[in-house]
Amino acid sequence: MAMDFFKAISVNEAFQIITKLANEYKMDTELVPLVDAIDRIVAIDYKASVNLPQFNRSTVDGYAVMTQDVLSASEASPCTLKVIYEVMMGEVVTKILEKGQTVFVPTGGMLPDKTEGMVMIEHTKKLDEETILVNKSVLQGENISYTGDDLYKGETYITVGKRITAYDLGLFASMGVGQVEVYRKPIFSIISTGDEIIGIDEEQALGQIREINSYALGGLIKQLGGEVHGCRIVKDDFECIRKELEACMASSDIVLISGGSSVGAKDYTRNVIESFDHSCIWVHGIAIKPGKPTIFGQIDGKLVVGLPGHPASALVTFSLFVKRYFLTIQKNQQQVVYIKAMLTGNVYAAPGRETYQMVQLSKKDDLWEALPLYGKSGMMTLLAKASGYIRIPIKKGEYVKGTLVDVYLLKDLVL
Amino acid sequence: MAMDFFKAISVNEAFQIITKLANEYKMDTELVPLVDAIDRIVAIDYKASVNLPQFNRSTVDGYAVMTQDVLSASEASPCTLKVIYEVMMGEVVTKILEKGQTVFVPTGGMLPDKTEGMVMIEHTKKLDEETILVNKSVLQGENISYTGDDLYKGETYITVGKRITAYDLGLFASMGVGQVEVYRKPIFSIISTGDEIIGIDEEQALGQIREINSYALGGLIKQLGGEVHGCRIVKDDFECIRKELEACMASSDIVLISGGSSVGAKDYTRNVIESFDHSCIWVHGIAIKPGKPTIFGQIDGKLVVGLPGHPASALVTFSLFVKRYFLTIQKNQQQVVYIKAMLTGNVYAAPGRETYQMVQLSKKDDLWEALPLYGKSGMMTLLAKASGYIRIPIKKGEYVKGTLVDVYLLKDLVL
Repeated sequence: MAMDFFKAISVNEAFQIITKLANEYKMDTELVPLVDAIDRIVAIDYKASVNLPQFNRSTVDGYAVMTQDVLSASEASPCTLKVIYEVMMGEVVTKILEKGQTVFVPTGGMLPDKTEGMVMIEHTKKLDEETILVNKSVLQGENISYTGDDLYKGETYITVGKRITAYDLGLFASMGVGQVEVYRKPIFSIISTGDEIIGIDEEQALGQIREINSYALGGLIKQLGGEVHGCRIVKDDFECIRKELEACMASSDIVLISGGSSVGAKDYTRNVIESFDHSCIWVHGIAIKPGKPTIFGQIDGKLVVGLPGHPASALVTFSLFVKRYFLTIQKNQQQVVYIKAMLTGNVYAAPGRETYQMVQLSKKDDLWEALPLYGKSGMMTLLAKASGYIRIPIKKGEYVKGTLVDVYLLKDLVL
Repeated sequence: MAMDFFKAISVNEAFQIITKLANEYKMDTELVPLVDAIDRIVAIDYKASVNLPQFNRSTVDGYAVMTQDVLSASEASPCTLKVIYEVMMGEVVTKILEKGQTVFVPTGGMLPDKTEGMVMIEHTKKLDEETILVNKSVLQGENISYTGDDLYKGETYITVGKRITAYDLGLFASMGVGQVEVYRKPIFSIISTGDEIIGIDEEQALGQIREINSYALGGLIKQLGGEVHGCRIVKDDFECIRKELEACMASSDIVLISGGSSVGAKDYTRNVIESFDHSCIWVHGIAIKPGKPTIFGQIDGKLVVGLPGHPASALVTFSLFVKRYFLTIQKNQQQVVYIKAMLTGNVYAAPGRETYQMVQLSKKDDLWEALPLYGKSGMMTLLAKASGYIRIPIKKGEYVKGTLVDVYLLKDLVL
């Protein structure tokens, strides 16, 4: 059979190869305004240009004190302090606290010199404009955020390869970084091959099916943070595919060719890649189900992936390998979140192939349940129902109903 | 104290109010091209316009047979069949199978009439151009996807309120739906108040701090799928805040005012909202930590939220209530994924307040561990480290180290 003509490598070998290719690829960087930087991947290490906070701040509304002055303060026997000043927000405070004195400081306000602790306003009572009673002692440093407590000047606060979160934006803002150096969004082209495939606006004759992989893959690419520069539908014809691939190469970092990745008479992907100068086929066939007839090739150092035309296969191959390449060329190595869930049916590995089974998650009491989505091959409604997939290693062979398994979510959540 | 002047309602009451307000808000819809529809929220139910598949298809490369013809087929005693035709991809097949005959059909190809099962090519042997041997029997319907197996014409395949996934795009594409009716992206404005707050490009004097909440909130809004139309920094001044709020109302669905939501002398948010005609304060104070001094108001039926200026408080209030409102006005009711993780430290609820503790997730062997992020109030680096938060109900009071807790991720993953 066709499948037997190529030697399938293991999933781990495929990971190693795709990671190596990614590490060799040089991605450009660009500066983006901070407001547009969410979910982009940082291209350099960022070090604090100033201390954070830049001055000793109060973390409460209250009174700055010397701890000795309130050491014995209690409800029953409060201490009296003289109010010498009230700090305003944003003010540079020049007052220096002395024994027996206190200063009102709002949350976030600068502390007078010699302040040792902040008594919360709740534990004080105003006697008159110049006097308060304090009914609770405070520890050295209590309710104070000292200069550099959050970040010291020179400390690295964001490292290369990090996907920018909302709170990273906050950190950048607090450092006055208005533009962030990130990797340029990797650009994909998608070529869908197949004599029976038609575009979304074409009249559909019986026997024809509409092209769907470019939409599904395009959605995954956008969710990852990539760009799609053109989707093309091509007949199963060597010259047509070659012409489209040539047109895509100049403008893309990664080209995906959906369909034609096996070794049948009409499977041209491999031959087309090999017909280019400076081309190479690194992988043809991975011991995985679905997704066995997968090709990793290169033309002029750019990745060309031959994906199986079957939507579920294209999904798995993309999610495992293309995603890894996409993240690695941007130096992103963050962990992917998976969810522990209880299987509600048996699942089996295909003999000799690491098997990825789509599942639908649902909440049962306090647990997640994973329903294996079985169905006839190629059912789009099954894919649309899928929350994620579980991995059945070759050696494992099966997981029985009731097993707690790791569900990898289709839309990644990185930590 | 200030906090005691307003009556804090429970988190559940706050949810009920924000949900009611959201259900009363009318969001417009718009048509977007399918390639731009990922992660948008569908505004109508979609029913299948055709059967999927539209014809009986083979799910394998192989031979169409009548089951009786191969009933006794085995390796030891194969059956002989006459090959009368080879189906091409995309072809409308008019051949009708008869007893003793077979037709080659590629994966996805149309089946001849009277086909009962598909024998995989692996279980056949070609004798000559017109004859094959079959060494395995097939069941009725084996390796066949019948018309409508995936979706029947008229069946609902996407319902209102669903966030569009990559595979939903595939379903839309297979139905030839090139434009999708989705809710318009809700528009936010953010007003940051505070005398000590300066913009990212301003010269920083000692005592001043840079505005960060608009960046962090803006990032969360974009990740949710909203738009931010303008961020403004305003001094703690009634007239200035009122003027900015008035300018924001016309162009926004939701206005967030960061800071000034408590009841101190310089907390103007409530009074500013109440100074408008057709305004209302629904909530002022929620029994939650952090985030107690939170305001839900309305002006002309639009939501105005007074968020605490403290970044962690603003985060929690936004993530719980504003997010709920945002999703509900788009009829989205999907479940939020949480992760079970083992606490690596004790956490305590604030007395009388449902408490949200930020945690950092990490993998330990096969488990997720949740490290409570303690630190001085207002530390941005803590927030940037946070993966999510855990919820400590008032009645619970505490969770001790080693407890398996639910971690709600900061960047939601919906099922």
